[in-house]
Amino acid sequence: MTNNTYKLLEDYMRSCMTDSAHDKEHIYRVLYTALTIAHTERDVDYDILICACLLHDIGRPEQFADPSLNHADVGADKAFTFLSEHGFSEEFTQKVCDCIRSHRYRKRNPPASIEAKILFDADKLDVCGAIGIARTILYKGIVGEPLYTLAPDNTVLDGASDTEPSFFQEYKYKLETVYDHFFTEEGARLAKLRRDAAAHYYQNLLSEMRAVYENSARLLDTHIEQS
Amino acid sequence: MTNNTYKLLEDYMRSCMTDSAHDKEHIYRVLYTALTIAHTERDVDYDILICACLLHDIGRPEQFADPSLNHADVGADKAFTFLSEHGFSEEFTQKVCDCIRSHRYRKRNPPASIEAKILFDADKLDVCGAIGIARTILYKGIVGEPLYTLAPDNTVLDGASDTEPSFFQEYKYKLETVYDHFFTEEGARLAKLRRDAAAHYYQNLLSEMRAVYENSARLLDTHIEQS
Repeated sequence: MTNNTYKLLEDYMRSCMTDSAHDKEHIYRVLYTALTIAHTERDVDYDILICACLLHDIGRPEQFADPSLNHADVGADKAFTFLSEHGFSEEFTQKVCDCIRSHRYRKRNPPASIEAKILFDADKLDVCGAIGIARTILYKGIVGEPLYTLAPDNTVLDGASDTEPSFFQEYKYKLETVYDHFFTEEGARLAKLRRDAAAHYYQNLLSEMRAVYENSARLLDTHIEQS
Repeated sequence: MTNNTYKLLEDYMRSCMTDSAHDKEHIYRVLYTALTIAHTERDVDYDILICACLLHDIGRPEQFADPSLNHADVGADKAFTFLSEHGFSEEFTQKVCDCIRSHRYRKRNPPASIEAKILFDADKLDVCGAIGIARTILYKGIVGEPLYTLAPDNTVLDGASDTEPSFFQEYKYKLETVYDHFFTEEGARLAKLRRDAAAHYYQNLLSEMRAVYENSARLLDTHIEQS
């Protein structure tokens, strides 16, 4: 890929990134991680991979504005328009769009090409470890959701059976389970290196919060007279 | 304190809380932690303490709208008006307002009464450990600031000498230094229990990010032709 092509794609990507959980640094992390994984695989088309990494989340603003939309589908459509209008070949454009469309879910429309598998794994690595924790909490701040919710008896819920959205719920539903779902060996290896950091953070936060709320009812009852 | 008085103060507090980093659960954590600390101290007036804990952050919305304002001063003024209008004695109102006004800074207008010292410590405990990390990242999400910034050579900065706001900068400037600044023995003891959780999280996130960016220039240069 020429430097001019890279700058064209990078500028378009930057114009589409808006919130700090899915900001441009997420894109660069995915790109650098994808290149690291790619060096352990054979027959990778680096132009397709770089282009797909740069554009994989350009559908985020549309999904943020309307959560019924899937940013992978919107992003693939936007990438198709942009690449077609800027003279990229039909074959190249189609392969990049396939990567973008399949980067989100493992079961529905799974990644088929090696570039799509690498993009999927590099993107999922950004949900692993300390960075996965940070991005999830950042997003809770942006959308105004809490870190945890409470049972009727004021116990801090651990997220496993929670019905209300919270950081703990997201951790148990998504972050904790992502480690077993990688397509490349290098992706799985890098994910495992980060697993303890995330698990320890979750356990520490849960322990701290449970210690704070543990005696709350008794503490208050001692000093509040029921009238 | 009667249950009716508690409900009156709680309802006013809830009407003032707006963002998820300083939301009502922060207030309850401070209240429960303050009561825990208070049981290790003598001559605590629990009515003053409970009232000051509930109302200590009611000036947050004003500071959020205008960062030149100090929420401790605004909160003390709002509490004075509210308590005076609702028939609390002048002495009680003044003591509560003194606690609120001195809960923010250690050097400027430091906490004087035992209730003010306990509120200060309970509030600072919510900046310690895993919960301090979570609240700081939540706030970065709300105000749209990044987790870290980069040096011109694409190295991830560790926050220690950073000039731009980020989570790493906040960690080095505030979170890392808070542990030595407690007024009560129990506050200092509880803070130390949380110290490792925060330090490990920061180190893990910094290590992960440095590993991702470490070879970024070389990885890209291999596949981008300078035109």
